[in-house]
Amino acid sequence: MTDFSHINEQGRAKMVDISDKKVTSRTAIARSSIFVNKEIYSKIIDQTIGKGDVLSVAQVAGIMAAKQTSTIIPMCHPLPLSGVNIQFDWVQDKDTYELVITVEAKTKGSTGVEMEALTAASVTALTVYDMCKAVDKGMIIGQTYLVEKTGGKSGIYRREE
Amino acid sequence: MTDFSHINEQGRAKMVDISDKKVTSRTAIARSSIFVNKEIYSKIIDQTIGKGDVLSVAQVAGIMAAKQTSTIIPMCHPLPLSGVNIQFDWVQDKDTYELVITVEAKTKGSTGVEMEALTAASVTALTVYDMCKAVDKGMIIGQTYLVEKTGGKSGIYRREE
Amino acid sequence: MTDFSHINEQGRAKMVDISDKKVTSRTAIARSSIFVNKEIYSKIIDQTIGKGDVLSVAQVAGIMAAKQTSTIIPMCHPLPLSGVNIQFDWVQDKDTYELVITVEAKTKGSTGVEMEALTAASVTALTVYDMCKAVDKGMIIGQTYLVEKTGGKSGIYRREE
Amino acid sequence: MTDFSHINEQGRAKMVDISDKKVTSRTAIARSSIFVNKEIYSKIIDQTIGKGDVLSVAQVAGIMAAKQTSTIIPMCHPLPLSGVNIQFDWVQDKDTYELVITVEAKTKGSTGVEMEALTAASVTALTVYDMCKAVDKGMIIGQTYLVEKTGGKSGIYRREE
Amino acid sequence: MTDFSHINEQGRAKMVDISDKKVTSRTAIARSSIFVNKEIYSKIIDQTIGKGDVLSVAQVAGIMAAKQTSTIIPMCHPLPLSGVNIQFDWVQDKDTYELVITVEAKTKGSTGVEMEALTAASVTALTVYDMCKAVDKGMIIGQTYLVEKTGGKSGIYRREE
Amino acid sequence: MTDFSHINEQGRAKMVDISDKKVTSRTAIARSSIFVNKEIYSKIIDQTIGKGDVLSVAQVAGIMAAKQTSTIIPMCHPLPLSGVNIQFDWVQDKDTYELVITVEAKTKGSTGVEMEALTAASVTALTVYDMCKAVDKGMIIGQTYLVEKTGGKSGIYRREE
Repeated sequence: MTDFSHINEQGRAKMVDISDKKVTSRTAIARSSIFVNKEIYSKIIDQTIGKGDVLSVAQVAGIMAAKQTSTIIPMCHPLPLSGVNIQFDWVQDKDTYELVITVEAKTKGSTGVEMEALTAASVTALTVYDMCKAVDKGMIIGQTYLVEKTGGKSGIYRREE
Repeated sequence: MTDFSHINEQGRAKMVDISDKKVTSRTAIARSSIFVNKEIYSKIIDQTIGKGDVLSVAQVAGIMAAKQTSTIIPMCHPLPLSGVNIQFDWVQDKDTYELVITVEAKTKGSTGVEMEALTAASVTALTVYDMCKAVDKGMIIGQTYLVEKTGGKSGIYRREE
Repeated sequence: MTDFSHINEQGRAKMVDISDKKVTSRTAIARSSIFVNKEIYSKIIDQTIGKGDVLSVAQVAGIMAAKQTSTIIPMCHPLPLSGVNIQFDWVQDKDTYELVITVEAKTKGSTGVEMEALTAASVTALTVYDMCKAVDKGMIIGQTYLVEKTGGKSGIYRREE
Repeated sequence: MTDFSHINEQGRAKMVDISDKKVTSRTAIARSSIFVNKEIYSKIIDQTIGKGDVLSVAQVAGIMAAKQTSTIIPMCHPLPLSGVNIQFDWVQDKDTYELVITVEAKTKGSTGVEMEALTAASVTALTVYDMCKAVDKGMIIGQTYLVEKTGGKSGIYRREE
Repeated sequence: MTDFSHINEQGRAKMVDISDKKVTSRTAIARSSIFVNKEIYSKIIDQTIGKGDVLSVAQVAGIMAAKQTSTIIPMCHPLPLSGVNIQFDWVQDKDTYELVITVEAKTKGSTGVEMEALTAASVTALTVYDMCKAVDKGMIIGQTYLVEKTGGKSGIYRREE
Repeated sequence: MTDFSHINEQGRAKMVDISDKKVTSRTAIARSSIFVNKEIYSKIIDQTIGKGDVLSVAQVAGIMAAKQTSTIIPMCHPLPLSGVNIQFDWVQDKDTYELVITVEAKTKGSTGVEMEALTAASVTALTVYDMCKAVDKGMIIGQTYLVEKTGGKSGIYRREE
């Protein structure tokens, strides 16, 4: 049975020692989403044609958050993030419009980039909420989860869907 | 039809001018959650009896994130946050354990604290994920949304559930 | 003769006491620019038509930097920034293309927002440099200066041009 | 008997609600120190005569830390710090040289500035250590404590010495 | 005689070039403490039995501060911190209760982790002060110093006690 | 024709993947300046003789900003900065005094340090402006540009002057 590795001998949290873990290429893909109504959907799409748009701002926010992950998540190790890419896809189901956010993060380091990908996904969704909340406060940020990770001793993880 | 207030005359994002908005007491309640398996549930509960626990760390992370909201969310105004409180509740459904996270944020300011409450809720959930991911990477962060807000010109918002 | 107000009785820097200054509406307009070659100019313009663009990212960077001014500039007071707006204008002179960056910052506070506007203008220009430097490292960030300020005891300042 | 106000009804930490506390002028004076050997003392003093010096850097660090207090101390409220001043005094006792660091912080806000003054004092001492540790790692940072506070409901506190 | 390595040829501070220093495993142990009265001691101990406690929050604060060291201490290099562990011990002497804070920091890097360990120790103590100051503002943060360091060219340092 | 490497397949910004770039020693030299009037020039020079001075504070600000570059510039990779040095030179032309700021940044990493050097140069100039603006708001920050870079696949760049 696996123990929580974040707990020290006094039963309190610690930042786990990763000095002996190997430096390998690591990737993680995380997903979040936000459900918006038709009015917001139309506005986001229309602005996309214009010069600036909600999604550009959200994407910048997500990338910057990925870099701040170790200052936001207490027991998370600082990582030399080597790449972040955020993709948007719309899924329509009748009157509901779901903006699916997929983040891929990469590093060459001693620990995984799952938290960086997840944090970026969450912050991207939160930023969309912030920019559209004047229209409707009822938007819901959808489930947020890890899709895949590679690299490190635990190897490949791939979510069964 | 409401316009996105975050867009300037060149079609790009701006931080909206709130100089003329009144300073009033404002509150916001947001909710997120995380679904964990039985093993993680037991471990979190057991540590709670000990000196330190996953939830304490997650709660500190959430409160600190609330204070960082305007540096994480690009168009969000800096706010003199006057209080943040985070509550945890467990909902069990057969083999699934959902940790429900409820955040209440307060301020006396010129703009609402919805983003502070939502950001705190997300970061609290992300921190639980981080501290338990050695046991299971399949945890899912549940829907994240605004439950209620008070104060300001738009008045009271209460989610219909 | 005016003394530097940032110097204490031991001849060292201090953060000036503004407790007794009045809370008034204050604005500041600052300007910076970046000179780019034709290739970069074309690419920036073309992407503008697409979904994402250099200028959107630069603008988000400038706005976020405005909010970080008091953590970047040592003796600068924290301010409840109430609005930031960044405008872009192109000035062409033969083969040289100058992207003029104009930032307007607003607050209701006890001290001016000049540094917020200037910092945002600089960071906007630096971000354009960062995103285009793969094409040409020879870009020059132009002069950066205060155009106008209003509010506070010293009243209105307007640059003679 | 006073209760810890930072604890919520679930027995966990919260950021106390200060919405109803009055906005008053508040000050706090904190003290720390660092004990250095003669060689370090001489070098600090000599550089003081030159253009740059250990104490200038330490002072800037202290002032910047005061502004970061609410991001460093988890349950600390964000404050519009209105002034910070750091003074240095040397106390010699035979071969021991104690650099006494006194920080005065001011605000007009709903809660005290004790933590800002204490944090600035600690960071000032830590910075002196950092800049001199190549000469001697045996330096000791002396006791750090609150000397005085004014303003707020609890009124004046003055340490008996 | 050793020179201060933080001073450049103009007599001003610089961040020393460590490009040529070897990447080795490095550790540092630092200590701080805080003296509290019996009432605070009892309250801290009692809460420890409950779900949340002062020490959990202080520990999270210390770990997060360790990761922020290079943004707090001006001439300190950014380091890929690989582990941080904080221990608490109580020393009672009649009516005085001293909470001894011991921090161990580790890295695999080109420079030492002394400042990370010292900064974490100070911030842990400051956080205890913050959470208990409603009960007594007279608490004193005790001496803060380096206990031991290993790794790097200068080898092992161990404080004589 | 070179493409902007910061743009993903959806036409939006991304943080470029540098996992496969080699870790080499890299340096960059950037320059900025600020034009001040005679009064400010005299005051800066005179304080230099005293204990603290405008330039010390500006230099600390520049060095700290270099370390924050990847949090300020959205698509910039986090870098283990190994050294930063800032030099000041005065150029007088009749009644105009130009303070020339030259920053050298070094790293051993997978990507260049141009942005760190440029950001430090800009922030150094902005800090001088901040500390002298009580005397004259008309100061102009001069052109900011890259003077030289070494290391990495693209090799040496040297500005023709």
